[in-house]
Amino acid sequence: MSQAVCTATYRSYDDKADFQKKALGIAVGLTVGSWTDLPEARKAEMEKHLGRVVSVDVHEGTEPGTRYADIVIAYPDVNFSRDIPALLVTVFGKLSMDGRIKLLDLDFSSDFLSAFPGPKFGMAGIRDLLGVQDRPLLMSIFKSVIGHDLPNLRDQFYKQALGGVDLIKDDEILFENPLTPLQKRVEACMEAARQAEAETGQKLLYAVNLTGPTSKLASQAKLAIAAGANALLFNVLAYGFDVLHELSSDPEITIPIAAHPAMAGAFYPSPHYGIAAPLLLGKLMRLAGADLALFPSPYGSVVMPREENLAVQAALIDPALPVRPSFSVPSAGIHPGLVPLILRDFGTDVVVNAGGGIHGHPMGTAAGGQAFRQAIDATLNGISLPDAAAQPGHEALRAAIDSWGFKQP
Amino acid sequence: MSQAVCTATYRSYDDKADFQKKALGIAVGLTVGSWTDLPEARKAEMEKHLGRVVSVDVHEGTEPGTRYADIVIAYPDVNFSRDIPALLVTVFGKLSMDGRIKLLDLDFSSDFLSAFPGPKFGMAGIRDLLGVQDRPLLMSIFKSVIGHDLPNLRDQFYKQALGGVDLIKDDEILFENPLTPLQKRVEACMEAARQAEAETGQKLLYAVNLTGPTSKLASQAKLAIAAGANALLFNVLAYGFDVLHELSSDPEITIPIAAHPAMAGAFYPSPHYGIAAPLLLGKLMRLAGADLALFPSPYGSVVMPREENLAVQAALIDPALPVRPSFSVPSAGIHPGLVPLILRDFGTDVVVNAGGGIHGHPMGTAAGGQAFRQAIDATLNGISLPDAAAQPGHEALRAAIDSWGFKQP
Repeated sequence: MSQAVCTATYRSYDDKADFQKKALGIAVGLTVGSWTDLPEARKAEMEKHLGRVVSVDVHEGTEPGTRYADIVIAYPDVNFSRDIPALLVTVFGKLSMDGRIKLLDLDFSSDFLSAFPGPKFGMAGIRDLLGVQDRPLLMSIFKSVIGHDLPNLRDQFYKQALGGVDLIKDDEILFENPLTPLQKRVEACMEAARQAEAETGQKLLYAVNLTGPTSKLASQAKLAIAAGANALLFNVLAYGFDVLHELSSDPEITIPIAAHPAMAGAFYPSPHYGIAAPLLLGKLMRLAGADLALFPSPYGSVVMPREENLAVQAALIDPALPVRPSFSVPSAGIHPGLVPLILRDFGTDVVVNAGGGIHGHPMGTAAGGQAFRQAIDATLNGISLPDAAAQPGHEALRAAIDSWGFKQP
Repeated sequence: MSQAVCTATYRSYDDKADFQKKALGIAVGLTVGSWTDLPEARKAEMEKHLGRVVSVDVHEGTEPGTRYADIVIAYPDVNFSRDIPALLVTVFGKLSMDGRIKLLDLDFSSDFLSAFPGPKFGMAGIRDLLGVQDRPLLMSIFKSVIGHDLPNLRDQFYKQALGGVDLIKDDEILFENPLTPLQKRVEACMEAARQAEAETGQKLLYAVNLTGPTSKLASQAKLAIAAGANALLFNVLAYGFDVLHELSSDPEITIPIAAHPAMAGAFYPSPHYGIAAPLLLGKLMRLAGADLALFPSPYGSVVMPREENLAVQAALIDPALPVRPSFSVPSAGIHPGLVPLILRDFGTDVVVNAGGGIHGHPMGTAAGGQAFRQAIDATLNGISLPDAAAQPGHEALRAAIDSWGFKQP
């Protein structure tokens, strides 16, 4: 009988374990609890609830601590409700505490997926909102936000906008505060966006940080929208994937959501424990409805290995998942000289995201954005950055390269 | 100027780092962003937002990979709102992804704490509900729940209750399902509880698993209460600490909450990454309002080192935290022969929690509970388990020891 199942892939480290037995223990223990001691008549009833071992791929290590198995278990849908907490608790609730084991991947039945509309906008929707179809997008981050008042934030925003960025996001550590409360911040920044658009002719999304008590997030989002917000930033892992799922499914939340990876380092970096980055920051963020997903770039101080980065992006756009693809936003350590590398690694469907690489530009914040836009245009046109920088009108790019260098892949 | 701050303690591994510099980078980077390049006038305004290095304690390692520092940073309260997501994102949002660093502990200002009423019942409240002041409590877990119908679950419940257990909890992987939906499950099990109480004279709390979409959890809890539920089980880490905080603060949720540690193994076991168990399963669970906190015992297959276990318990009862103490529920691998060890390790303010150690008893489930109660009484009276088992009427304990052995500490 073919049966709707979700499958989980684990990597389990153990120098001596019988991994087949371990896999069977997971499949039975996390579903019906026990099997061999069930009466035959009961087995017939329970079979539709029983987990199955799909595969066990043992890698014999050469040294102690290196022997592991990749184990795939199928969990019948009938055992859990159609929400991410239920699936995660089923497949990695108790098991997460059972020795060296990491959750690598999940695959969802179409029935499970039917509860997930996914990103409301996704890559194409974001491009449509911005009217930009043919190039990577450029996002910038405030230089500093804590302790700044509204005129200061507005001024930072305006200077970033003038440089031709497509998106500006709040810092993830900017919470509700008396100096720059959500609604007033949205009003001030969106007014600065309109002022800049009058000069640049370019649309802009401002992702305002959605914070506070969980039960008030949806109403906060709607207040932000009423105040003119056209995007949200959300610290998904501090609240849970289900909260993102509910926000992104809310018909009254009519603007894109950018998922911030804050706290993700508590989950993905260990080889032995936690949840792999492509699942945590890729597949689950997309399933839960992130239109844009930020994750550590392979270029900066907050480093993730390049293969892992690319696997995160692959999960965000994998056509096998029947929801809209999410925009990849590899972040940290980005300056204009890295644009050719970013485009080689991630293609043109990427958001180039910079903070210091924009604000720290020797000619100022607006020039910082311009330098990135010039680097993007040059790279798309097959022109090396030094050649582009030598062209008239490309002083911003030249100054950026003089400051930070460049890497031609 | 004395200033309200919350402090975070980290362990950072690095063979070469200048840990003083790293600590300063954290204190500045996660608060005002930059400091040395600020104009003097601005510094005066920003000072109240600036993080401070409290201490840096370097442990020079003898081998590569063993050099680390314990770093304590103070974060001004003025920077974040009074909720756990804001505090966690501030102190371990971006930082979690910055190399080998683990969040060991948090200390809260009294102003921050003022937003947290803590457990509504706590240890004393649970004891009052049960009318049991003078001994460890006994909790049991259903043998298996998935695929069982109401009469079966009711029967399992009744047999457990007959054995003299104080609490029975749902399995954490029992979600809303057509066979045993929440309200009907509560009605059936509470009716079994009353039936058992008529025989045993003993009160009993049934912790029903609270599941489903985040926004419906409070109303589900209230439906459960209306159906007669007298306790809740909650998979806190699948939903986020803030959800527990909101549930436990809800004046209409008038029953104790038991926090399940599902997913905790994704956070605490690595020495290099994540969040330490005493903070994750102890201090934060209590702050967020868990009346009972389950965590892996040091005795079973799902193992946590004994010192770490005791540190979890210490956090759950530490008088320095001005909220009610939470009951410790060390779980997994518990049989009656371990009771002397459990009481030595955790004292009498502990919940002895067993599944297989009750259902697997050779004389049946009710005898399983009786064996635990006999082991608890013997230990409290300074009688060794073999001596107690030899007494008339202690057949249940004798059979348990014959099956599983015992450990006299």
